[in-house]
Amino acid sequence: MTDNIGPVDASVNPRYAGIATFARLPRIEDVERADIALVGIPFDSGVSYRPGARFGPSHVRESSRLLRPYNPAQDVSPFAEAQVVDAGDIPANPFDIGEAVGEIERAATALGERVDRIVTIGGDHTIALPLLRAVTKKHGPVAVLHFDAHLDTWDTYFGAPVTHGTPFRRASEEGLIDLTASCHVGTRGPLYSRQDLDDDQRLGFSIISSVDVEEQGVEKAIERMLQRLGDRPVYVSIDIDVLDPAHAPGTGTPEAGGLTSREVLRMLRALSGSRIVGADVVEVSPAYDHAQLTGIAASHVLYELVTLMAAQIGGSRRA
Amino acid sequence: MTDNIGPVDASVNPRYAGIATFARLPRIEDVERADIALVGIPFDSGVSYRPGARFGPSHVRESSRLLRPYNPAQDVSPFAEAQVVDAGDIPANPFDIGEAVGEIERAATALGERVDRIVTIGGDHTIALPLLRAVTKKHGPVAVLHFDAHLDTWDTYFGAPVTHGTPFRRASEEGLIDLTASCHVGTRGPLYSRQDLDDDQRLGFSIISSVDVEEQGVEKAIERMLQRLGDRPVYVSIDIDVLDPAHAPGTGTPEAGGLTSREVLRMLRALSGSRIVGADVVEVSPAYDHAQLTGIAASHVLYELVTLMAAQIGGSRRA
Amino acid sequence: MTDNIGPVDASVNPRYAGIATFARLPRIEDVERADIALVGIPFDSGVSYRPGARFGPSHVRESSRLLRPYNPAQDVSPFAEAQVVDAGDIPANPFDIGEAVGEIERAATALGERVDRIVTIGGDHTIALPLLRAVTKKHGPVAVLHFDAHLDTWDTYFGAPVTHGTPFRRASEEGLIDLTASCHVGTRGPLYSRQDLDDDQRLGFSIISSVDVEEQGVEKAIERMLQRLGDRPVYVSIDIDVLDPAHAPGTGTPEAGGLTSREVLRMLRALSGSRIVGADVVEVSPAYDHAQLTGIAASHVLYELVTLMAAQIGGSRRA
Amino acid sequence: MTDNIGPVDASVNPRYAGIATFARLPRIEDVERADIALVGIPFDSGVSYRPGARFGPSHVRESSRLLRPYNPAQDVSPFAEAQVVDAGDIPANPFDIGEAVGEIERAATALGERVDRIVTIGGDHTIALPLLRAVTKKHGPVAVLHFDAHLDTWDTYFGAPVTHGTPFRRASEEGLIDLTASCHVGTRGPLYSRQDLDDDQRLGFSIISSVDVEEQGVEKAIERMLQRLGDRPVYVSIDIDVLDPAHAPGTGTPEAGGLTSREVLRMLRALSGSRIVGADVVEVSPAYDHAQLTGIAASHVLYELVTLMAAQIGGSRRA
Amino acid sequence: MTDNIGPVDASVNPRYAGIATFARLPRIEDVERADIALVGIPFDSGVSYRPGARFGPSHVRESSRLLRPYNPAQDVSPFAEAQVVDAGDIPANPFDIGEAVGEIERAATALGERVDRIVTIGGDHTIALPLLRAVTKKHGPVAVLHFDAHLDTWDTYFGAPVTHGTPFRRASEEGLIDLTASCHVGTRGPLYSRQDLDDDQRLGFSIISSVDVEEQGVEKAIERMLQRLGDRPVYVSIDIDVLDPAHAPGTGTPEAGGLTSREVLRMLRALSGSRIVGADVVEVSPAYDHAQLTGIAASHVLYELVTLMAAQIGGSRRA
Amino acid sequence: MTDNIGPVDASVNPRYAGIATFARLPRIEDVERADIALVGIPFDSGVSYRPGARFGPSHVRESSRLLRPYNPAQDVSPFAEAQVVDAGDIPANPFDIGEAVGEIERAATALGERVDRIVTIGGDHTIALPLLRAVTKKHGPVAVLHFDAHLDTWDTYFGAPVTHGTPFRRASEEGLIDLTASCHVGTRGPLYSRQDLDDDQRLGFSIISSVDVEEQGVEKAIERMLQRLGDRPVYVSIDIDVLDPAHAPGTGTPEAGGLTSREVLRMLRALSGSRIVGADVVEVSPAYDHAQLTGIAASHVLYELVTLMAAQIGGSRRA
Repeated sequence: MTDNIGPVDASVNPRYAGIATFARLPRIEDVERADIALVGIPFDSGVSYRPGARFGPSHVRESSRLLRPYNPAQDVSPFAEAQVVDAGDIPANPFDIGEAVGEIERAATALGERVDRIVTIGGDHTIALPLLRAVTKKHGPVAVLHFDAHLDTWDTYFGAPVTHGTPFRRASEEGLIDLTASCHVGTRGPLYSRQDLDDDQRLGFSIISSVDVEEQGVEKAIERMLQRLGDRPVYVSIDIDVLDPAHAPGTGTPEAGGLTSREVLRMLRALSGSRIVGADVVEVSPAYDHAQLTGIAASHVLYELVTLMAAQIGGSRRA
Repeated sequence: MTDNIGPVDASVNPRYAGIATFARLPRIEDVERADIALVGIPFDSGVSYRPGARFGPSHVRESSRLLRPYNPAQDVSPFAEAQVVDAGDIPANPFDIGEAVGEIERAATALGERVDRIVTIGGDHTIALPLLRAVTKKHGPVAVLHFDAHLDTWDTYFGAPVTHGTPFRRASEEGLIDLTASCHVGTRGPLYSRQDLDDDQRLGFSIISSVDVEEQGVEKAIERMLQRLGDRPVYVSIDIDVLDPAHAPGTGTPEAGGLTSREVLRMLRALSGSRIVGADVVEVSPAYDHAQLTGIAASHVLYELVTLMAAQIGGSRRA
Repeated sequence: MTDNIGPVDASVNPRYAGIATFARLPRIEDVERADIALVGIPFDSGVSYRPGARFGPSHVRESSRLLRPYNPAQDVSPFAEAQVVDAGDIPANPFDIGEAVGEIERAATALGERVDRIVTIGGDHTIALPLLRAVTKKHGPVAVLHFDAHLDTWDTYFGAPVTHGTPFRRASEEGLIDLTASCHVGTRGPLYSRQDLDDDQRLGFSIISSVDVEEQGVEKAIERMLQRLGDRPVYVSIDIDVLDPAHAPGTGTPEAGGLTSREVLRMLRALSGSRIVGADVVEVSPAYDHAQLTGIAASHVLYELVTLMAAQIGGSRRA
Repeated sequence: MTDNIGPVDASVNPRYAGIATFARLPRIEDVERADIALVGIPFDSGVSYRPGARFGPSHVRESSRLLRPYNPAQDVSPFAEAQVVDAGDIPANPFDIGEAVGEIERAATALGERVDRIVTIGGDHTIALPLLRAVTKKHGPVAVLHFDAHLDTWDTYFGAPVTHGTPFRRASEEGLIDLTASCHVGTRGPLYSRQDLDDDQRLGFSIISSVDVEEQGVEKAIERMLQRLGDRPVYVSIDIDVLDPAHAPGTGTPEAGGLTSREVLRMLRALSGSRIVGADVVEVSPAYDHAQLTGIAASHVLYELVTLMAAQIGGSRRA
Repeated sequence: MTDNIGPVDASVNPRYAGIATFARLPRIEDVERADIALVGIPFDSGVSYRPGARFGPSHVRESSRLLRPYNPAQDVSPFAEAQVVDAGDIPANPFDIGEAVGEIERAATALGERVDRIVTIGGDHTIALPLLRAVTKKHGPVAVLHFDAHLDTWDTYFGAPVTHGTPFRRASEEGLIDLTASCHVGTRGPLYSRQDLDDDQRLGFSIISSVDVEEQGVEKAIERMLQRLGDRPVYVSIDIDVLDPAHAPGTGTPEAGGLTSREVLRMLRALSGSRIVGADVVEVSPAYDHAQLTGIAASHVLYELVTLMAAQIGGSRRA
Repeated sequence: MTDNIGPVDASVNPRYAGIATFARLPRIEDVERADIALVGIPFDSGVSYRPGARFGPSHVRESSRLLRPYNPAQDVSPFAEAQVVDAGDIPANPFDIGEAVGEIERAATALGERVDRIVTIGGDHTIALPLLRAVTKKHGPVAVLHFDAHLDTWDTYFGAPVTHGTPFRRASEEGLIDLTASCHVGTRGPLYSRQDLDDDQRLGFSIISSVDVEEQGVEKAIERMLQRLGDRPVYVSIDIDVLDPAHAPGTGTPEAGGLTSREVLRMLRALSGSRIVGADVVEVSPAYDHAQLTGIAASHVLYELVTLMAAQIGGSRRA
């Protein structure tokens, strides 16, 4: 483990210095092998309201300069446990959703052959579909743990079957999702009709809503979440709008009444016993951010995800 | 019910398209009859600190484009239960508070003859006085449920008897308020003297402060609130500064240590058994907002109020 | 003429009050006939860099509240000379450029049958192609007077033939443009290669660059512009990024070294002898704007365009 | 002269340190006598559109920390030539324009008895009326040199005779203005009707519009301005919106196509031969400012005005 | 007590008027004696990431204009209990940390001879070291109650022994801290290594982390805090980044997952039985603030600290 | 020439995609040899007012994504003429100016041995001193062409001989500057005393002030500039505050009345006959920027400088 290449040394290079990679980690082309790759997907042509998440990856990289190597909340040094790298961005056609989705699937599949785990920085939520296609090729159907203000299980919008409102419906239809173990966390706000909830359940999801968290508390929510996931391989998909707009103004379809960053970080840390096979953090739209508020929240969320994966990799290597 | 005209169809017109009405609802002149009218009052000449709430109504309209027709938290489709419309703005003289208050009272009274319920978008809190005058003509003295960081029961300021700091003192003096059933929720921050609290009690209010919510929890606060209101007709007046400045930076007299939007939405939903005869949401000052944070919070608060009213109207129609 | 319905009376309704239409003009459904229609096209799926112009029409409407009825620089009262209306927005599919372009062409053609002149508020520059198709159906090939930092005569981008970088190449190929009378004004900044300039000339454009304006002065630029246009029917297409980013930060592909709003307004007023058959102002991207700086500049530009058209309509009616 | 107390020494106290007075000058209560007093009037209840100029004085003070003691453009050290002080703010009733105007007149008159010259920091343009009343008590009718995007010679608005749109009409009617020597500089943008221009001329003003500056150049504008003023005592009233919104976003009624700060500073310096008996800079509305852009422009404008006055005082003392 | 000079009377001078002192209190040179002095230290040359806290004192002063004289949460009128003043800013060399630290220590020591208690407005956290040196001269070693996202017990950084990351290590080494009674509250986010925690404990601190607050609740945190402090004299040092970035965006090293302002205010009020001998609020970096969000939170925190001190002074005077 | 590695291909990777290097050029470690290196120096510990330029290099990189390979204003394809690379950032001690200056000198000297020309992205103006030391080792004393609002020839500040206000005094004293050929362009705003101008002249500078540009025009300014430079080797040092704050709000010591970006770009292009041996663009302070306004202006200025150098390198290679 000690031979992993970690972030640039902050005692030699100040944190604000240098070309920005996530957490100032090495780029994938600068290491010989890698366990975990962070990769950006600057694509936002699937959004239905505020666009701009195409600038998410670069914004998150700039916002991640303060991340340090030891995670006291999990008592893990993730970059020592595993070789973590920044794999740059996957280019995607901004004018043709179908082509973009194909490009993403191919690139994620190829990257998945080089590394154990991929953590993606979006981009809008459309990208979850090709990412799930890629990850399930390796791992079979996964339990999707979906943090979001929205269900993202709509059918079509303006005739388009694949947008940021539909990835989990398509994924369910394609058999990518374990119908007995997936759940949404943090959903809230108005829907089109009660039918949305019925459809969602049929597609394989249970719901731990933001109202549930408010009324029952975070501890109960964690308990329900872990029970639902069981021991399946888990794909964690985090729409940053699961956070209240106060915590994440820089996003495309904000809804009042959300979770705090403290709550979401706590919930993620509770996954230390789960096997997380892939993850994404999406819908950071920098033009609406302030003082990197949203970028920093996303960075911390990504850091917890990487820590979870790195601890598992390091642990299994030691075993 | 099915013949109500709802919002513009988002599957035909994207949410960001079209001239902005609240929640993309029809304008009052575009329907034959209406049950509930949202109306703006762009008046802020009664403020003692940061002005700008005159731009509140247009800002809230633009911020409400994401509201959808079904409210899962209350399990109600408000725009199906009742005909809800946007009645535009009531013009008010910006240079003469007295004249403005008269104009508002007359316009609100007239509008109250066309529709069952009025929900007002401020504007500063001065407008609560003429609105209470109008609503009590129909319903008699009301229990005022007042969400605010401040008491708004001062006496005069720079010789002016009617400003945004005095509406509830004047209303109490005029007999518009049920002295046994009114309460403030969320008050906090420094006062001029202990006398302010004594005066306030004498004027008919009890207090569920922000400190109370922090120390006793939201559930207890709801219990106290419902007990205080009993079964009286309720007027809900929400100064958006009841929210913490993190949740509502776009307001005129912000005080640290406030409520979250999640807490306020939960408290409002607890009113489903109360008879709400009128409501306002005031003090949204867009020049201080960021990424429509405050506008979105106000929109959601308004949506819950409309849902409560619509459910009652729809329910009584079915009964 | 005196029977035209003008903007809402500001001595009765303050300028900040009321649901926002452009310049507080009547909606098209509120008048019996109209000469000039402003119409929004909230479409930005053709952008290559910063998206967000889909919010342009609503932002420009809110930013146009200060426009008054008499234009002293042209000595014309445009809303008295012609019936000017706000025709709302043309919805366009955000996920399929081809379909969107078809929708826009059909809607603009239909609107063109109801009114004499259309002035469009974008949206990104993609929309110029369907608008040119619609306007040339009525008027034949037009001289395009194109204010922009960029040439917008690229060929394809990511395989897409119709984006915000290509409308004038496609229009030229389709024979919509008078190859002897069209010109760009204000272009500047780096290109892909010298070939871009050769292609552009071949497609029928001459160039009055920002460097020309700096070195030769505005008066000379106007002279060259008028000489180029001659007496052809003119379509004026204004990308707001023709302004320096200091004057128009709220746009998608800003380039330093641009024109001032004073210069552009002067150039437009010089067109009083030209026959303007259509016009658009595009690429206002509100998320990057500050204090409505860009929105106000766009509003004033639109107001000059409407004044030019109204004077011609009023003049010909009197003749 | 050398015994004047100047700004806090920046080689001992960094410029960002210390309680903010204008240019870090002494407060009036900290000196024995003063020649020139800067005084704030935080009043904005006379505005017709965006309020907020009540925060103008404190914003300009904070924005003036970089001003240094020697003005190379005029080759004058103003704080050595005259004792310049910050006289704090004149309080004015925010709820009653009439009362506020009386308070301002009385306070300005009293201050005028203590110092030779007053330079006022607004506040909205309403305050020019009481300031002109005060200054003409000492000096008789004055030539008003009025920099503004607007004429400010409207009659009434919502029945109010004294607002930020009317000070110069009232002043003309009251005989405070030299009808043969006053002029507007920088006016632009739409008016209500051509009648506005006729009224304005009748009230004693000539116009050097923004269009004139663009077409004829700054040098010609200066020539016309000086010719108009002749050798009368001059009151300079500067609405910061004379600057283009790019240079002064932080204001209440911005109009595109304005002057640059470089042009306005040049015009002011051309007044070195004029006798300036009073001056104001108004309509700085900080909530719409960015990075103190507008505050800094206002500070520099104020600094030139103080330099002009100080040079005259110092010169006459030496003579 | 009644002869204390309080804030400027808001019924005569509106809150937005006048040169800004903290809470509009008198300046130290305007009173004969003072009990508690607020003093700014505009120094930020010790920061490792975002600078700008040099503008903290002036920003907090402007943000404190809304503070009123009675604190209902503590039922104390602090400015009646004690003479509280604004002592201006302590100048500090921006180019030489060592010299600055000496200047601050000397100035704080001198000020401590004039007043009972000092409350400091930073500036970055470097200043805590000279402030602790000054306060311990009077009171001996103190229990440090340290609210912060970070431990601030690093050793050196770029060879510098005194920066904003090291004050409490140096203070511990110098014997300024009671090793049995000091604690951090609110720490969170990644560290350099597990060694950081070991070092910290050895230097005399226990930790009530942000995770502890989330999992155990605020009440438990207060209990632990009071138990740790016991009855020692306490110095309270509050890095505003203890608040979540949603509540305090305007700071230099923000970390997600922090405390709310409501929680911190509650914790501070719990100190009413403790003897607080000094306090600071640091790391407010205005360039990253929005709508004075952070400045207002800092003002309220300072107000609670002053209230605690004033109640003790007033109480002992009455005793 | 054709074997140079240019920017990432924008037809494959959208401009917003990928880890940000300047103009999306290759990193120095990704090429075999390089002619021109852009290098960041994230150092701002020498500033006297607003800090933050330490984030300048990363902000300029993100703002330079739109730069394309052909410069039509100079008719040069700079990245084809020369191998241009991004050499990353030179780390510099933030706590010790002297040490930082040494580090910068050593690193710039070493880099100068690998490449022909260095163009630096600041950082504050302090860095010009070590950069001049490095460049003069290769080229002997240089004519300094200094664009700035300020002279930067002060002596010491708070005892520090090397800060952002002194680089050219120190450089002159050290004999690095050709005393007969250096000049400032764009200076303006107040000074400490007339002595500043005398000192400046003695140190070898002539001045083309912002007032000169306004009164005499840009063409005359270019003529004077070229005459002053003659045929000496030129070092171009551009403080971005030479631009008016409207064009460059994101800087540390803004002064009203500055140059436009169009004027500065024109002046730079006039240097095509000069031999430019080094250049820097400094004082971009992103926390005060808006919509990358300042970052884009800096990017374009850097692009012109690189074009000038590349044309000379390419030309001499062909010769």
